[in-house]
Amino acid sequence: MPVEIERKFLLSAFEPPPTAVRQHIEQGYIAIKEDGTEVRLRRIGGSFVLGVKRGTSGPEPSPVRIEVERELDEGEFADLWPATEGARLAKDRYTFDASGVTVYVDVYQGELAGLRTAEVEFDSEPEAAAFPAPDWFGPEITGVKAYKNQTLARQGLPKS
Amino acid sequence: MPVEIERKFLLSAFEPPPTAVRQHIEQGYIAIKEDGTEVRLRRIGGSFVLGVKRGTSGPEPSPVRIEVERELDEGEFADLWPATEGARLAKDRYTFDASGVTVYVDVYQGELAGLRTAEVEFDSEPEAAAFPAPDWFGPEITGVKAYKNQTLARQGLPKS
Repeated sequence: MPVEIERKFLLSAFEPPPTAVRQHIEQGYIAIKEDGTEVRLRRIGGSFVLGVKRGTSGPEPSPVRIEVERELDEGEFADLWPATEGARLAKDRYTFDASGVTVYVDVYQGELAGLRTAEVEFDSEPEAAAFPAPDWFGPEITGVKAYKNQTLARQGLPKS
Repeated sequence: MPVEIERKFLLSAFEPPPTAVRQHIEQGYIAIKEDGTEVRLRRIGGSFVLGVKRGTSGPEPSPVRIEVERELDEGEFADLWPATEGARLAKDRYTFDASGVTVYVDVYQGELAGLRTAEVEFDSEPEAAAFPAPDWFGPEITGVKAYKNQTLARQGLPKS
């Protein structure tokens, strides 16, 4: 089953380690439903991806989500992209190993500039729960709606 | 460009010709947006398909729509299917050649029983416009919102 189990944290500062792989990501949402189900277009490096994440009607925050993705060609992506108007964001993603796990740091751009997050994916919920966040991680935002990409793409940075 | 140009008609009666190929279709909508953009799951025979049709903000009815489809495996389909709750329909589709074109007749089931439609797809808008509907076709419903599958799946048969 295509399931995503992840935890997400804010970062106050970030200096990419020399081993980090950087990818530019532009993503937009074709649809975002009340239950959290989302249909996303993503350009990541030279790839184009259509993805559906099913929302859970269960209690939030849950680190588990069902996700299905398929590659598109550039023409298909361009044809569908207008359907994401008003729900887009851009970020640079740095991927590297740290503290025994793979860490994905997103440095947001444009209207979201200043926001940095770190995500870690796990194979199981117990593993996710047992993960000791390293010192350089800030507050945890797993499942926090205001920091979901689907919210950021439509509403911008949370008012603090 | 993945474009769909079609015309659609009501049928008052329908007797499948011996050459018709019959497929059972179950489909549900993950999302339907105000501009008509839809994200659809379809089980057709033994295949499972995720499709996105982009709505047009231009004047309706237009026979042209952008469509992107990808096959899913049965597990992915089952995982996403719950996201279509409240927006589903089932029908038998008969495909055959008649009047020099390929005709797709849909015989709806369940709450939509009694509804039958015929669709014809074209390579160009001029070709679509020039098509002489055969005598056994009923009123044309190309672009009529009440008869779109996305509307039928959520609202049932039009009140007449």
